[in-house]
Formats: sequence, structure tokens, C-alpha cells
Amino acid sequence: MKVSKEIVRRYNHLRRNVRQIRDNVNVQSVLPARGSREDFMYEGTFFEAVGTILVIAQLFGLMPVHGVKAKHPSKLRFRKCSLRFLLCIFYTISIFILTLLSLYWISRTKLEFGKLVFFTFDFANLMSLVCFLDLARKWPKLMVEWYRIEKYLPQLKYQFDKQKMAYQIKMVSLIILFSSMAEHLLAMTVGAHAAANCPTIRDPIKAFYMASYPQVFLIFPYSDALGSLAKFFNIIATFAWSYTDLFVIIISIGLASKFQQINNDLFKIKGKVGIRTNFWTEYRIYYREIVMLVGIVDTAVAKIILISITNNLFFICVQLLRSLDKKPTFAHTFYFWISLIYLIGRTLAVSLYSASINDESKKPLEVFRSVSREDWCIEVKRFDEEVANDTVALTGMKFFKLTRKLVLSVAGTIVTYELVLIQFHQDDNISDWDPCLSKNETAKKIVFG
Amino acid sequence: MKVSKEIVRRYNHLRRNVRQIRDNVNVQSVLPARGSREDFMYEGTFFEAVGTILVIAQLFGLMPVHGVKAKHPSKLRFRKCSLRFLLCIFYTISIFILTLLSLYWISRTKLEFGKLVFFTFDFANLMSLVCFLDLARKWPKLMVEWYRIEKYLPQLKYQFDKQKMAYQIKMVSLIILFSSMAEHLLAMTVGAHAAANCPTIRDPIKAFYMASYPQVFLIFPYSDALGSLAKFFNIIATFAWSYTDLFVIIISIGLASKFQQINNDLFKIKGKVGIRTNFWTEYRIYYREIVMLVGIVDTAVAKIILISITNNLFFICVQLLRSLDKKPTFAHTFYFWISLIYLIGRTLAVSLYSASINDESKKPLEVFRSVSREDWCIEVKRFDEEVANDTVALTGMKFFKLTRKLVLSVAGTIVTYELVLIQFHQDDNISDWDPCLSKNETAKKIVFG
Amino acid sequence: MKVSKEIVRRYNHLRRNVRQIRDNVNVQSVLPARGSREDFMYEGTFFEAVGTILVIAQLFGLMPVHGVKAKHPSKLRFRKCSLRFLLCIFYTISIFILTLLSLYWISRTKLEFGKLVFFTFDFANLMSLVCFLDLARKWPKLMVEWYRIEKYLPQLKYQFDKQKMAYQIKMVSLIILFSSMAEHLLAMTVGAHAAANCPTIRDPIKAFYMASYPQVFLIFPYSDALGSLAKFFNIIATFAWSYTDLFVIIISIGLASKFQQINNDLFKIKGKVGIRTNFWTEYRIYYREIVMLVGIVDTAVAKIILISITNNLFFICVQLLRSLDKKPTFAHTFYFWISLIYLIGRTLAVSLYSASINDESKKPLEVFRSVSREDWCIEVKRFDEEVANDTVALTGMKFFKLTRKLVLSVAGTIVTYELVLIQFHQDDNISDWDPCLSKNETAKKIVFG
Amino acid sequence: MKVSKEIVRRYNHLRRNVRQIRDNVNVQSVLPARGSREDFMYEGTFFEAVGTILVIAQLFGLMPVHGVKAKHPSKLRFRKCSLRFLLCIFYTISIFILTLLSLYWISRTKLEFGKLVFFTFDFANLMSLVCFLDLARKWPKLMVEWYRIEKYLPQLKYQFDKQKMAYQIKMVSLIILFSSMAEHLLAMTVGAHAAANCPTIRDPIKAFYMASYPQVFLIFPYSDALGSLAKFFNIIATFAWSYTDLFVIIISIGLASKFQQINNDLFKIKGKVGIRTNFWTEYRIYYREIVMLVGIVDTAVAKIILISITNNLFFICVQLLRSLDKKPTFAHTFYFWISLIYLIGRTLAVSLYSASINDESKKPLEVFRSVSREDWCIEVKRFDEEVANDTVALTGMKFFKLTRKLVLSVAGTIVTYELVLIQFHQDDNISDWDPCLSKNETAKKIVFG
Repeated sequence: MKVSKEIVRRYNHLRRNVRQIRDNVNVQSVLPARGSREDFMYEGTFFEAVGTILVIAQLFGLMPVHGVKAKHPSKLRFRKCSLRFLLCIFYTISIFILTLLSLYWISRTKLEFGKLVFFTFDFANLMSLVCFLDLARKWPKLMVEWYRIEKYLPQLKYQFDKQKMAYQIKMVSLIILFSSMAEHLLAMTVGAHAAANCPTIRDPIKAFYMASYPQVFLIFPYSDALGSLAKFFNIIATFAWSYTDLFVIIISIGLASKFQQINNDLFKIKGKVGIRTNFWTEYRIYYREIVMLVGIVDTAVAKIILISITNNLFFICVQLLRSLDKKPTFAHTFYFWISLIYLIGRTLAVSLYSASINDESKKPLEVFRSVSREDWCIEVKRFDEEVANDTVALTGMKFFKLTRKLVLSVAGTIVTYELVLIQFHQDDNISDWDPCLSKNETAKKIVFG
Repeated sequence: MKVSKEIVRRYNHLRRNVRQIRDNVNVQSVLPARGSREDFMYEGTFFEAVGTILVIAQLFGLMPVHGVKAKHPSKLRFRKCSLRFLLCIFYTISIFILTLLSLYWISRTKLEFGKLVFFTFDFANLMSLVCFLDLARKWPKLMVEWYRIEKYLPQLKYQFDKQKMAYQIKMVSLIILFSSMAEHLLAMTVGAHAAANCPTIRDPIKAFYMASYPQVFLIFPYSDALGSLAKFFNIIATFAWSYTDLFVIIISIGLASKFQQINNDLFKIKGKVGIRTNFWTEYRIYYREIVMLVGIVDTAVAKIILISITNNLFFICVQLLRSLDKKPTFAHTFYFWISLIYLIGRTLAVSLYSASINDESKKPLEVFRSVSREDWCIEVKRFDEEVANDTVALTGMKFFKLTRKLVLSVAGTIVTYELVLIQFHQDDNISDWDPCLSKNETAKKIVFG
Repeated sequence: MKVSKEIVRRYNHLRRNVRQIRDNVNVQSVLPARGSREDFMYEGTFFEAVGTILVIAQLFGLMPVHGVKAKHPSKLRFRKCSLRFLLCIFYTISIFILTLLSLYWISRTKLEFGKLVFFTFDFANLMSLVCFLDLARKWPKLMVEWYRIEKYLPQLKYQFDKQKMAYQIKMVSLIILFSSMAEHLLAMTVGAHAAANCPTIRDPIKAFYMASYPQVFLIFPYSDALGSLAKFFNIIATFAWSYTDLFVIIISIGLASKFQQINNDLFKIKGKVGIRTNFWTEYRIYYREIVMLVGIVDTAVAKIILISITNNLFFICVQLLRSLDKKPTFAHTFYFWISLIYLIGRTLAVSLYSASINDESKKPLEVFRSVSREDWCIEVKRFDEEVANDTVALTGMKFFKLTRKLVLSVAGTIVTYELVLIQFHQDDNISDWDPCLSKNETAKKIVFG
Repeated sequence: MKVSKEIVRRYNHLRRNVRQIRDNVNVQSVLPARGSREDFMYEGTFFEAVGTILVIAQLFGLMPVHGVKAKHPSKLRFRKCSLRFLLCIFYTISIFILTLLSLYWISRTKLEFGKLVFFTFDFANLMSLVCFLDLARKWPKLMVEWYRIEKYLPQLKYQFDKQKMAYQIKMVSLIILFSSMAEHLLAMTVGAHAAANCPTIRDPIKAFYMASYPQVFLIFPYSDALGSLAKFFNIIATFAWSYTDLFVIIISIGLASKFQQINNDLFKIKGKVGIRTNFWTEYRIYYREIVMLVGIVDTAVAKIILISITNNLFFICVQLLRSLDKKPTFAHTFYFWISLIYLIGRTLAVSLYSASINDESKKPLEVFRSVSREDWCIEVKRFDEEVANDTVALTGMKFFKLTRKLVLSVAGTIVTYELVLIQFHQDDNISDWDPCLSKNETAKKIVFG
């Protein structure tokens, strides 16, 4: 191919043209040009919006990358000799040791679901830490590309629109992190309450730690210090779990908002007559850039998504399995249901937020449908077919696509599973609440006290 | 975009043109113009057709909206200080209390499928009441839009065609409401019969109420008045349940009939040569309007559909689970099977009527397939592709689409579930009807006695 | 629409043109014109091919229609006062009585899978009889239409090609009817053998009849005559069952062979250059006619297909359920497995033959893919898109489409079901064939004894 | 059709033109012309790449075809009177006898999963041998066609690119064959260890053989020679199993690499402006040739794929079923998990490698999406639609397509199955690791002992 240089020149020319066309159309948008790096307040970029949340993550050893609060993504750096990197490595190794202890504990005693839970919890969070470490390496490049595409898209006019995404991200983060903390505190309260009434071990602190971290105290003799350490890493792991879910949501909000921006412009001209072909070409290219961005992001965060989804599904199944067990105290029952509802709610939130990317990517179809006969041209048709045929969505390593349909099929499977479980535990089919049908004694006990 | 005003003018011009084209084609149709509001007898609108059925619903506290029997949907009003609104609120609160009683009852005793049924029944009907209340607020706007689109479509020529939809809706309503009442009376008869033979409680009325509303009499001491009250709200709840299903069917008939109207016109020209491009443009726009109407209606009634479907599926599963239990008397057995068949029949009716929207929306494809080579133009192709690619259907909050395919997959799941259940209950595999294989005693008892 | 008459004239003109174009292309095919009804030997029509098989069916009371061996389908008549109609009615009523007896038997004793089988067998075959009676009414019209389309398609040149379909239908019929008979005789032999060794009833004939028709002898006192009568209707029912499957296969062969005929012509020009647009138009219309034929046939035989598929699936599930039971004698074991393999084989045959319609309908795609750039025109594109987008297949009342994919999903479900069953029956996990692991006694018995 | 000869001439002309166009584009590629058969080093053909692996297979009686290491596939011959053919026949018969012995053993004793495994293992590998024998007959023709298409595609420029596929194939073969051997040796070690500690049989060799081949020694009296023979054929069968999987992987690498070659060229011009229509026509034809090759190969190896997939799935299910059994020694536990992980890993490898064909075949879509407005022409559109609509993949006899989606649905089914299994085995829900909740004795034993 000899044409290369010539072609690159012509292509860049074309892109410049597209830019000019856009500027003519949105003639009001005399916004700061791409180059100027001075006035960065409220630019509305994703990089800006996630800064604070990444700082919080770094406290717990996730995403050890420098410059997350900088003014421009080009300042992002991944350095191996830095405090946050060392913190991350330290946490990773510690949780790796915990995982090994769990595995050893399982291999030495009878395999049980209850034990598998300990191992899975440790293992999944270890994987989270490792994946975020891996992502941190790719983060600088990813953010630069994301920034580039954000700048390439038509700029938002109003401060309100620019702040919207950042506001949404912050609210979701607050809600998830606080509810996660609340759930964890509740778990501890219930555990402490049970420990205080432990019939075999007098010291409540010892009882608490021994019930909470059996994998540790099977091998090492009990000491308060070791218990506190285990508790500390347990907090780290719990944060990693919540943060994995939160991260998928944040990414999804960021990507969906880009589609929304395009859709807003498209819906403004819905049903109007006399739209120029240039307009469709321009927006097709914008749409294409966002689809490309989704692809790049998907490749980068694929493992994190897979961990988030499988981990949540596993724990939902485990909890459902336990839902029919008799709980020792009312506190346990109460915590169990709160925890299950929280878990299902969070999983639903992850699923629906990530499905929203796909939902938004399909919306332009509605605009194409109402294009008038005169304006219907080969460019609209091409745009239409691309939107209709391609499935734009985050994926779990290309095995499944995160769409609304997936949410339903997963929910259906879980309900079927629960129905089968209930069926297994159904032993006494003669109902005990109908005084005329049930055995007299049970009936009396219920009806008369 | 400066073009707006100019464009709106041109677009309206276009729509007027389309209208003229249509009038030229259907030159016979010198029907009352859109404006005239005098002679409203048998206009064939959906608003007219559902008037009476909504009045009945309002007696039971559903859809508290004024003006349902008015001549024009613009007269519809949702008022907060009205008798029907207060009635609705009163019923809602009462059933809310019943739901709380069920929840309390469940939380205090062992979790059982039989008890879950009480709770689910109360909870689902509470949700129905709330959703219909919510829908009542949106109803006036929805009906105006529906009316506008009905008037925009080519008018039906014959009185017979106009009355068809209303007749269909009335027949279905009659059948469902009467069969529902019959089923409820049968249930009461069986309950009364069992109560009369109750070994523990002498008073048959008391026995009946205590067996029917255990959630109430666990907390409150028994009194006949309280029992009657519980019965009254039970009737309200039962009506709400039936009406939810009926409502989905009515909505489906209304929407499907619009597609049928378009299809009738299209099938008239099937296989003919010399169809003008204008014709296809016109009908594509009509088709698009109906699709839009389906979208608006779907958004408004999404929750009601979801309640109807999930509620029915839940009760089918519960009944199937019970299908293998031993029933105390033949009356119970008889009622059980009648009730199950009725439940499955009603669920099938809801599914198939709502799937009919999708079926009708796909029919134009057959017409496009037989367009001759000379008439094949870009407009037919566009119409063809839109019909082929879009799935027009009511949805359960966008999670699933109500199509024939869904009916099959749901039926398949239920059959599998029942097979697994039968398998669980299969204990004695040596058949007792073959005198040569079975144990002698059983065999003798069957064959000779 | 005033244009109608003019248009019909022009359309017929077009079709005549298409016919001329075809005759020019296949200039060698100077075959008997459509009108001549003299030399009907080996015309290769479906009507001819199924004549004999319908005569056989009429002996067993199925498809009571006159003129099945006539020279032209226009001679077909459905008459209510004819011997074959009365025979059909008589059989139907008799099997209806048997079904009622089964239902009564079930309702009086404990519900059991084994008993359900009796009822389902009688009920399904009753339905078959009724559906074939219903089809017989539509058959004359259906055959005329089928004949018309067969004549409209380009005629086959060679006697060999013409006889192919009829030969295939005859072979399949022979194989299925004979194997079905063999299976039935084997069942009787096994039953007779068991009856001869019956410990409770001395008379082997009585034992045989009582074990075979428990639903009859629960109500009526035993008599040899009644037993023989039950046996007779049992043979009728068994034939109806086999014939339902056979009929679906025959219909599928008939329809698939039409697509094959078109495909043969299309594949002759695969990869060639210089194909005229006329050619594609012509074959698109042929293709369209066959698709229409599939639609008409599907509507007519929908119920028969549904009965065939559900009946077979039900019996496969039942047999699998029994597959793990202990059989009383080796003869029973042997019969059981032969019977199960036969059942699965026949169901597979029905599925694959009907899926072949869909397979054949998709084959033209391969030809379109190799059309050269010069010949690629709007007509090829239209043909291509119609073939690619439409799913042409027989359906089970529009709920599912009979394609290869369906076969797999059904097979998958059955295998999963069997795996779950095996799991249930798995009680003793310590294998008894490993002398070092199993309990000593069992091991010894196997290894040394 | 009189046009045939003329058309063939014109079509060949066209293909020659395409070749010329290509040569002009890749003007650097002055590679050895198609005809010259001299300098065959590193040609990069699939035939070359699989030579050595086929030789190894022939030692174990698979693929008895001559000339696999020849310079040109036209030298391949399938001869019935040759040593490798006789070896193959001998192995086939021997394993057939083993299969019969297993069947006899099963039919005489109680049906058990453990025994079914022996039979399935023998039967599946027998089928493998037969299918490879069948494939050997088709292999010469298949390789010639494959070679023809490889030569028709644009030639690779660099030696590195040419050797890549062969290198990949060799590495995968090495890994799979060695890990398979390691797994087999491990199995033998565990068996020998168990035999040495056998409580019933003193002679460890006898104990080993009797536990390993119970189907043989149920009928024949024990002798060391017979045991060794059984071991020998067991090795043959094990190799056949591994090789079946390996073969599917190799075929997949070969086909995917052809798509990669085309994709590399397409991605070079991604986003460039001024691509000539000729280019798209040319690459569409290349793409079409590879699709055709996939079709031919799929038909030839369909049975082998089906055996590979079903066999692996069956053994995974069996192993999962056993995963919850108590193992007699730690050695058994260790071997069990290693073996299960190996089995799942190999199945995943087969699935993902075969899914890669489909993945690669979809990649051109990305290039079409970024074609500029000026270059968008009917040829790009046609190419685009063909790539988007056709599913190019290996299939299991057309029942299912080997895509990434299939992998997920299979994995999902397996996980669900395992969850149900765990549920069955869950008996004691009170966890034994929480000292405060569990029964005191167990707790003490774990915590303090």
C-alpha cells in the first residue's frame, strides 16, 4: 500500500472538515478550544468526575496510580516505587495469605458450603485487588483516550449539563459506600451479640474473632492481636468487594452519559424536516467514537466486571440456600434478611446501570424512524443499520453482554433455584394454620396461643 | 438550530399533504371531520369502548378518574377530593393493613409456602390498587393521545367495523368477570362445606373465617364482625386481581385492533401492481404512530403488566406444588382442579391477547413480500425493514417482551417444574394396577373390590 | 381503490411474462402443458405420492376423504354420508369412551404417573382422530392449492426426479409402519409372557387383558369379548399414534422437496456470470409461492404437529422416568429398551424431517453469496434479504418453529432431566466393582462368583 | 441453460482479473507462483503444519493415510492394504470387544453411574477411531482443497508470519499430549497406590488390573497377560480421547489463522480514505473462500466435534457428581481434583479455540464501520451485510454452533447442575466451625484439637 501518507493526510483533512461542520451547526458553542489547559473548572470530563472516588480507593490499596486529582489525564502516572503501590502490594499479599489459610482449612475438613463461602470471599477480593492493580497500569492511557473522545464530541453548553455526570457519580458512590459500611457494622453487631452469649467461650472478643475467622485460628493459637489483624484485612476485603461493584457502576454512568449527550442532540431534530446529510455523517462518527470507547473500556475492565457479577451471583445463591435454615436468634434473622436485600439491591444496581449503556445506544433508532421521506438518505440508512445491528454493551470477557435481557434471565434462574430449594424443604404439606385440617394440637397452639 | 419554526411549518405542511393524499385515495370516506364533536354515537374509539368497564372498576376502588363515560377524552379529570378517590384510598389502606398482618404472621411462625400465599395475595393486590391509582393520574393524557392517533388514522367506513373492538372488549370483560365470580363462589362453598364439618370449632361461621383469614385472628380475638370485614376486603382484593388481568387484555385488544385496521388496508392491495410510493409513505407514518402509541401505553401500564404476569405465575407454581398433595375431601379436589384450570386459562388469555399485538405488527411483511418488481422502491424497503427489525410489543418494564415465544418458554418451564415435582412425590414405583406385578393385597383391593 | 380490475389484468400479464421468461430459459422443457389431464403417469405431484398411504389410514378411521387415488385433486370430496366417515366417527366415539374410563379410573384412585400414561395415550389418540377428521374437511382445497403451486413451478425434466419424492415417502412409510407394528407385537409378546406367569390370575388371557386395560375392568366385570374389543381399539389407537408422526414426516418431505427443486436450479447457476435480473425475479416468485404453501399447510396441520410433538415428548419423559426402575423380568428389560430407542428414533425422525424444510429454505443464501459484482442487483438483494430474514418452517401453532435448533434444545432438556433422575436414584456411591474399595462381601460376589 | 460454457469462461476471466488486481495492490509480493513445486520450505500451509502430529496419531491407529509428510497434499493417499490401515483396524476391533464386555457387564448387574463411565469411555473412543478412519478417506481431497484456497489468498510476505500457525499448532499439541500423559501417569500411580493397600487381594498387580478393568475380569479368569493387554488398549483409548480434542483445536487454529490473515490486511486500511471498490470485491471473495472452506471442513469433521464435545461434557458431569463423595485416601482426593481441573481446562480450550473462528470472522465489521462516507459503496455494504448476517463457525452436526455464547450457556448449565448437587448433599446445615453455634463436641474437636 503506497497510498498511506497521502491517505492519512486526507483523512485528517476530513476529520477537520467534520469539526468545521459541527462548529457551524453549533455556532453558539464558542467554548475553550482543545489545546487550552488553563480554565479546567467544571469541564465535565469523566477524569474529573472520578478523581475523589479513586483517592478513597487508594486508601484501601486499590488503583495505585498517581495524579488522579490532576488537571489533565496526561499527568497520570503508574509508578512502582511509591507508597500507594507498596500499600497495594502489602494488602494483596496479606489477603493472599488469608486465602491460602482458607484453602488449607477446607482441604483438611469436610467440604461444606459454609466453608466455601470463606474461601470464595477471600479469593474473589484477592482477585479484585490484583485486577485493580493491573488496571492501574492501563489507567493513564485509558483516561487520555477517554478525554480525547470527550473533547472530540460536541461540547455541552451549560454548566448544569457538565456537572450532571459528576453529580450522579458522587451520589451513587456515597449511597453505596455508606450502605456497605452500615451493612458491615450491622454484621459486626450481630456477631458481637452472638459472641457475648457464647456458651463455650467466655471471653466475648475471643468468641467473636474465633467465629469470624475460623480459617486463621485453626492453625495459629488465639491472640487478640492476630484477631485484630484479621479484622483489619477483613475490612479491606469488604471494601474491595463493594468498590468493585461501585466501579462498574461508575464506568457505566460515564459511558452512558456520552450516549445521552449524543441522543439529546438527535432528539432535538426528531421529526424535523430538512436535516442535512452532513449532520448524520457527523453524528455517526461521534457515535462510532463512543462505541470505540466502550470497546476499549470493556477490554480494560473485563476482569473486574466478571469478578463483580460472578461474586454477587455466588453470594446470592449461598444466601438463598441459607434462607430456609433456622436462624439461632432473631438478631441473626433480621441481619440475614437485611443483608440479602442489600446484596440483591446492589447486584440489581450494577446490572441495570451497566445495561443502561446498551439502552442508551439503541435510542437513536427512534429518531431514524421519524426521519421524513425527503431526508431519508444513504447516510441515515447506514447510521440506522449500524445502531440496529450492533450490540453495544459492556461484556463479561465477551462471554455475555450486560443488557436488560441478561438481568431477566439471571433473575429467572435465581427464582427457579429458590423454588426448587423451597420444594426440598417442604416436608409437612398439611398446613398448620387451618384449624379444621391440621392436627389438633398444632392448631390449638397457634390459634389459641 | 435556527431552522426550528420554519421546519415545524414545513413538517405540518407535509402532514397535511399526507392527509390529502389519503383522502384522495379513500375518496369514498367522506366521514365526519376531526373537529366536529356532535355526532359521537359509535365512533369506534378505545375511549368509548372502555367507559363502562372503568365504571365497574371504580366501584371496587380502581382507577378513580372522572369523566370515563364522557363524550370526549378531554373531559377526563383526576381529582383528589372526590368520592371515588377517597374510596380507592380507603381500600388501599385496608388491604395494606391486611398485608402487614400477613407479614407479621409469617415472621412469627415457621416459613411455609402456604403462608407465603396469603402474604403474596394481599401484597400483589395492594400493588394493583396502588398502580391503578398511579395510572389514574396519567389516564386523561393517555386517552387524549390515544384518541388523537385514532382520529389521525384513516377512518373506518362501516358501523360494523367501528363497533367490533367495543363488542370484543365487552364480551371478554363479561366472560372474565363472571367466571372470576363463579370461581370465588365455588371457593366459598367449598370453604363453608369444610367449616361445617370442622372437628375442632363448632360454629361453622367462625370455623370458616378462622380458616380463611388466619393472619387476622392470630392477633385479634375472633368476632363475626371482624370476619365479615375481612371477607369484604377479600372480595375487593379478588376483584383487583381479576381486573388487573382483564385490564391488560383490554389494552391489548385496543392496540391490536389499530394494527388490524392498517393491515386490512394493506392486504387489500396485496399482490396488486401500480401502487404509488405515496401510499407506502402514508401507511408507514400510520404504522409509526401506532408503534408510538404502543410505546406510550407500555410505559404507562408497565407495572400493571408486571404484577399481572408475576402474580399469575406465582399462583400457578403454588397450585402445581399442591397438585400432588392429598386433598381432605372430594369437594376440595374438585375445587382445586377447577381453580387451577381457570387460573391457567386466564393466564393464557392474558399472554395470548398481549402477544397478539406483536403478531399483528408483523403481518405487513406478507404484503411487502408480494410487492411486484416494478413497485419495489426505497419507501417499501424502509417500511419493510422497520417492520422486520423492530419488535413491537407490550413489555414487562422492558425486561421481557410479551410475544408468543415468551408464552412457550414460560409453559415449558412450568411443565419441567411439574415433572420435577412429580418425580419428587414418586415413591412407590411398582404400579398397583397390574395384578401380576403388584403386591397381592393392593391388587385385589382394586381389581375385585 | 378504483384501479382494481386494471391492476389484476396487469398482474396476470406479469405472471404470464414470468412464465414466458421461464420457458425461454428452460427451453428444453417441452413438457405436457398445465391443461392436459390425460397422461398422468408419474407427474411427480404430492397428491399422487400420498394416495396409497391415505388409503391405509382410512382403514383405521383416519382422514375420511374420497378420491385420494383419483387422477386430479379436484376430484377429492369430503362426504358426511360415507362408509369411511362413519368408520371414523365410530372409532372416535369408542376411543372417547376409553378416555372417559381412564379419567374415571384416575379420579377414583391415587394419582400416579403410570396411570396418567393410560389416560394420555387414549386422550392424545382421540385428539389425533378428531384432528384428522377436521383436516379431512380442509384436505380437498389444500391439495388443489398444492397441485396448483406444483404446476406453477418449473417442471422437472426427468422421470427419475419426478418419482424421487414419491419413492422417499413410500420408503419412510414402510419403515415406520412396519417398525411400529413390530414394536407393538413385541409389547404383546412380553405382556403375554408376563401374563402366563401371573401369580394371582390363572387364566393367562384374562391376566393379559386385566393388566393391559385396567381402566376397563375396574368398572366392567371381566369377559373375553370385552378384552378383545379393548385390544382392537388399542390397535386403532396405536396406529393413530404412529400415523400422526408419519403424516408430519410425509408433509415435511413434500414441502422440502419443493425447495430442493428450486435450489437445484439455483445451484446450477452458482458462481456463474451474466445471470439476467429476470431470472432472480422469477425464482423469487417461485420461492415466495412455496413459502406461501408452507404457511397454508402449517395452518391446516398445526394441531396434528402439536399432538405429535407433545405426545412423543411426554412418552419419552415417562420412559426415562421408568428407565431406572427395576424391571420384573429380562423380557421386560429388553422390551423396555427397544421400545425407548424406537420412540426416541421416531421422534428424532419427525423433528429432523420437519427441520429439513427450514434447512432447505436457507440454502439459496449460498448462491447469493457467490453472485459476481456485475450481476449484483436490487432483485438479488431483495431475494437475499427475504431468504435471510424470514424463518420458513412448520410450527407448533406458531408457538415454536420446527428447526434444527429446536431439536438440540429439546434433546438438551431431556438429557438434563435424565441426569437429575439418575442423581435421585443414586444412593450407594461406594462402587461395588472395585474389590479394594467396596465392602468385601459384595466385591467377592462379583469378582469370584 | 445454453450459456454455461461461455459463462464459465467469463467467470474464470473475472477471477483472473481479481488475481491481477491483487497483484497490483500487493506489488511487493513477488512470491513463488502457484505452479512451482520446488522450494517448499516454510510455505506456511496447514498441510505442512499438521504433518508431524498426524504421524504421531498414526502410531496409535488414528488417521491411517499415506503421505502426510509429503511436499504437496496431492501426494496424500488412503490405501486399504497398508500397515497403518491394518493397525487402525486391529485397534478398532479390540476396543469394540472391550465395549461389548462393558455392555455385557452393565446389563448383568445393577445400572450405576460408575459402570456407565466404563462403557461410555470405551464406546466414545471406539467412535473416535471409527470417525478418524472415515475422515482418513476424505482427508486427501480435503487437504487439496484447503491448499488450493491457501494459495488463492494473498501470500504472506515474511517467514515469521508463515511459520506462526505451524508454531502455534506445535505448541498446543505438545502441551496437550504431555499434560494428557502426565494425567494418565498420575492416575496409574494413584491406582497402584490403592492396589498396594488392597485389603482383599494380596498381589498388587492383580489388584490394580482387577480394579481398573472390571468389565474384563468379570468374564475371563484373571491373568497378568490379559491385564497387560487391557492396559495397552486402555492407553490407546486414552490417546484417542486426547487426540480428538487436540484435533478439533488444530483444525480451529488452521481456520482462524486464515481469517486473521484477511483481517490483518483489512485493519491496515481501517479509517483510511480513498480505498477502491476493487479492493472490497477482492477481499469479499477471499472471505467467501474461507467461509466455504469452513463449511467443507465442518462437514468432514462434524462427527469428531460432536464426539469431543459430548464426551467431555459427559465426563465433567460425572466428575462433578463424584466431587461431593468421600474419597478413600488423600491420594485419591488429590488426583480427583487435578483430573477434574485438567478435564475442564481441556474442554474450555477446545471450546474457546473453536469459538475463535467465529470471533475472527466477525472482526471485519469494525473496519466497515470506519469506512468514510465517500468510500461507502454497494460493495462495502454487501460485504458488511454478509459478515454481519452469516454465522461462520464449526458446528456439532449443524445442531449447535461453536461460539463464545455456547461456552457460556454450557458453563451456566454445569454450574447450576453442581449447585443442585451440593444442595442434595447438604444435610447438616448447622455449621461446625462456629464454636458458639455448633454442637459443643464438634466445635471443641476443631478448635482445640
